[in-house]
Amino acid sequence: MIPTVRPSPPHRVVVIGGGFGGMQVVKRLRHAPVELTLIDQRNFHLFQPLTYQVATGALSPSDVTYPLRAMFGSAPNVRVMLAEVRGFDLGSRQVLLDAGSDGPSTIEYDTLVVAAGSSYAYFGHEEWREVAGEVKSLESAVSVRSRMLSAFERAEVATDRRNREADMTFVVVGGGPTGVEIAGQIGELARDTLASDFKNIHPDDVRILLVETAERVLSAFAESLATKASRSLEKLGVTPKVNRTVVDIDADGVSLKAPDGSTERVPARTVIWAAGVRASSLAGQLGEQAGADVDKAGRVTVEPDLTLAGHPEVIALGDMASVSDGSGGTLALPGLAPVAIQQGAYAARLIEHRLQGRSMGPFRYLNKGNLATIGRGRAVAELGPIRLSGPVAWTIWLGVHIWYLIGFQNRLVVMSRWSFSFLSRGRTQGSRIISSPVEEGRGALE
Amino acid sequence: MIPTVRPSPPHRVVVIGGGFGGMQVVKRLRHAPVELTLIDQRNFHLFQPLTYQVATGALSPSDVTYPLRAMFGSAPNVRVMLAEVRGFDLGSRQVLLDAGSDGPSTIEYDTLVVAAGSSYAYFGHEEWREVAGEVKSLESAVSVRSRMLSAFERAEVATDRRNREADMTFVVVGGGPTGVEIAGQIGELARDTLASDFKNIHPDDVRILLVETAERVLSAFAESLATKASRSLEKLGVTPKVNRTVVDIDADGVSLKAPDGSTERVPARTVIWAAGVRASSLAGQLGEQAGADVDKAGRVTVEPDLTLAGHPEVIALGDMASVSDGSGGTLALPGLAPVAIQQGAYAARLIEHRLQGRSMGPFRYLNKGNLATIGRGRAVAELGPIRLSGPVAWTIWLGVHIWYLIGFQNRLVVMSRWSFSFLSRGRTQGSRIISSPVEEGRGALE
Repeated sequence: MIPTVRPSPPHRVVVIGGGFGGMQVVKRLRHAPVELTLIDQRNFHLFQPLTYQVATGALSPSDVTYPLRAMFGSAPNVRVMLAEVRGFDLGSRQVLLDAGSDGPSTIEYDTLVVAAGSSYAYFGHEEWREVAGEVKSLESAVSVRSRMLSAFERAEVATDRRNREADMTFVVVGGGPTGVEIAGQIGELARDTLASDFKNIHPDDVRILLVETAERVLSAFAESLATKASRSLEKLGVTPKVNRTVVDIDADGVSLKAPDGSTERVPARTVIWAAGVRASSLAGQLGEQAGADVDKAGRVTVEPDLTLAGHPEVIALGDMASVSDGSGGTLALPGLAPVAIQQGAYAARLIEHRLQGRSMGPFRYLNKGNLATIGRGRAVAELGPIRLSGPVAWTIWLGVHIWYLIGFQNRLVVMSRWSFSFLSRGRTQGSRIISSPVEEGRGALE
Repeated sequence: MIPTVRPSPPHRVVVIGGGFGGMQVVKRLRHAPVELTLIDQRNFHLFQPLTYQVATGALSPSDVTYPLRAMFGSAPNVRVMLAEVRGFDLGSRQVLLDAGSDGPSTIEYDTLVVAAGSSYAYFGHEEWREVAGEVKSLESAVSVRSRMLSAFERAEVATDRRNREADMTFVVVGGGPTGVEIAGQIGELARDTLASDFKNIHPDDVRILLVETAERVLSAFAESLATKASRSLEKLGVTPKVNRTVVDIDADGVSLKAPDGSTERVPARTVIWAAGVRASSLAGQLGEQAGADVDKAGRVTVEPDLTLAGHPEVIALGDMASVSDGSGGTLALPGLAPVAIQQGAYAARLIEHRLQGRSMGPFRYLNKGNLATIGRGRAVAELGPIRLSGPVAWTIWLGVHIWYLIGFQNRLVVMSRWSFSFLSRGRTQGSRIISSPVEEGRGALE
């Protein structure tokens, strides 16, 4: 009797999260001898470094999103699945899903990559989320845009001076790159774009505060660059409020605490949150099941090769993972796209190496530099020992961001919008609509 | 004593509605010696003839909208106001507003132009609105897009055959130009665009029904053109269901009644409404206060010069007005942008003539033709005695629509999107995102 030769079934890789990290894993493995399943709650990749520009109306949602299916439609070994991950059963190597009444409730893996990211945390004050929008998720950025524009609309017709001042005050919480970028863009919006549209509003009526707990903005940058950024911000009408902690936020304003313990109340109807983030709850679930540490930002600690201790078949990366340095500490990695991209690429190589029976050294982060833009033609860049500011830094920032916008069409659209915006001093129009959710029907003035 | 010469205060024109009609009035009067106030609930003009393309993901919301302030920001005699109009006091010449807690509650006029448009009516079945989306308002078009794409996502992973069939069945109610256009675009979406993205879906799995009460689609067109349109639709996988009346719609399907009285149940999870419209309730209020007729579509009857009987200072136009022919009947005008545009231009001339003490003849509609597109390269056009179909008609349709997209930037963006889409056979990607309202948080699979 001739023995039947059965081909071994393909190695099943399940990737959770279509952000920068997860996308990189799938991209790099799409020609490898594996069967890939990419699971996300949303059907698109979001280019988070530019999502804040949706909030300020410089870009429209379709400019910063790209459908996952369009990206991997032509790869025969990639399956995209829209579902919410409820949890894991690491013992039986299963992901537990909520894919609607019709879809499957579990999916099996040989290797699991969890790259579920993070979202803004409100320092334990979940009630602040209601009043202080953020610019990390697409929906919230759209909502921030509507709130800002509605504040201008109210101020235009306001009869009460104090209400008008609160409408014209914008508070950005968090002086990191995102906070700096959004404060600068609000300054430009007020100065160039909206001043001509609203006949009763003068740019000087607009007050923009950038609140930072540390003693300076952009603390990840060299001090000289942070000082330059501060000066650029002030030119755009932004007042950096350093050494201030937010102690309260409600619909009418914020309360700030100074180092001497005194509290200042700032009446403001638009508050934008760009402070701390918290890892996806899936990080905590992984930590619990594997007995791995979870830090106070909710990140699960992984081995130097990004795998979960005791579960070499499970990889966690990006914003939701804290990487052990192999000697009791963890690597100090920023929560940025380049980290997730490099970790995704590493994870893909690790999976390929293992299938070939080869081993790999630990993950190493190559810091290519820090970039932050403040406004048109204004940016700061730190590339190793090189420190740049002004138009040169801004051009680098522009190039890097357009380069990484994955869709070919998105690149074109964003480039043309930005060129147009640059040439016309910010008079990009189409994205400045106040949208209201369907539920609310017709009302644009909430 | 020398008498003081006081300049007479400028004539105050209040325009309600920033659609095609109202916009035209403001545009034409922006250099006239009048003080203009444009009131709208939304801060943008919506290019309604293309809003359905947002539902099919061919365009993004910012492509079909243009901020009203951006349009009239440079005109010194134009004031834009975001407010909801609650009603009128024709006696004291006041508009009653709901402009938020801070804004004014009334505004006075010398001449009032009401151009508040219409919205879809569900034949008295308001409960159908919940399950059958429409493509006239921006929010609803975005919601229809999310529903359609979610149906494909569910079908991709579905385990139950019958549920899968309901997910793959799309019913469009109303065989006028909008219904034909949207059915055709769903056909293209299924055939060209999505077939490659969804590995478990074959284009032939998708069923698209176009339901029409009359005995043929496009009843406003010549029969030969309607027949050609039907054939084009069938090539795209659309089945016209003529002589059928919708008697029920719920979340799982529709019930259709045939002329012989028999009823057919069609399981379908996506129903799109493109049937009857109803005038803004402001039309009814005008009719009530002036004692003018209001027809069963809710439109107020106006004099041959578009003014309200007994109130020559009040003009109503567009979808919300029915124009008296001066001999007991009314003009049979379609609810299309060209009618509103021509009426807006007429109203502006009427106001200018009156200020100069001149009189004017009645409004006359110049029918420049009928256009409907079915898909890429497929359209029908009726220009007076000339009947066209195929690529020539489509090119005309394209030109007319791009020409009328008012924003310079919008024109460029739409043109580049369409060129890209045409060359790549519908693989325009950026607008194919499933958006969920902020309230719902993260869930994309409702």
